[in-house]
Amino acid sequence: MTVKTISLVEKHALFSEPWSPKRIATVDDYEIKLAKASGAFDWHKHDEEDELFVIIKGILHIEIEGQDTIVLGPGEMCVIPKGVRHRPVAGTEVVDLLLMEKRGVTNTGDNPDSDLTQVIEDL
Amino acid sequence: MTVKTISLVEKHALFSEPWSPKRIATVDDYEIKLAKASGAFDWHKHDEEDELFVIIKGILHIEIEGQDTIVLGPGEMCVIPKGVRHRPVAGTEVVDLLLMEKRGVTNTGDNPDSDLTQVIEDL
Repeated sequence: MTVKTISLVEKHALFSEPWSPKRIATVDDYEIKLAKASGAFDWHKHDEEDELFVIIKGILHIEIEGQDTIVLGPGEMCVIPKGVRHRPVAGTEVVDLLLMEKRGVTNTGDNPDSDLTQVIEDL
Repeated sequence: MTVKTISLVEKHALFSEPWSPKRIATVDDYEIKLAKASGAFDWHKHDEEDELFVIIKGILHIEIEGQDTIVLGPGEMCVIPKGVRHRPVAGTEVVDLLLMEKRGVTNTGDNPDSDLTQVIEDL
């Protein structure tokens, strides 16, 4: 397998749908994904998996049960621990994200019947 | 545990030693680390673990056994698959990196007696 350079900006230019994570790489059993935010996502939690958010462009608010909302800008990141209910909300019109979590995680967590539930595809 | 915003730029300003990865977060059994490059690292491989490189600032060359060297700039990334021998080489004076790999991985891989082997500490 040839190792390739992956440009986050170029990959983000390939899609526009919000809340529809796309896989760009795997690290062992973990997936590196890109996603865009627009408006509010659903409240949810992942019972067994931590989730990394890294902001590439724009502002993302993450409402978190039991604590103050956090606000993330470009070059900022956070990890939502397993079991913690949260709701990402776009803070700007364009929000480009990088996510990392275990393969097979449902994007809507414990709320799989949500209209926002997506099958993750390669970008 | 309170979820916190982590600034990659602010964290990178806290240290200066090259080739000395610092842990800034964990995602399940995986570590998110920051590192700086200067000159050439050692040739090595990780037999059991893939390794993610994301460039925050500067240019990083990664020489890879069996293929052309790849060149990564800011906002670019690659995954070095398990078992693939590689050697990162700084392409600029300042090179700020984000790494992600499984907890417990030795930075020098199959070359643990190298002077470059480091214990990973929290930043």
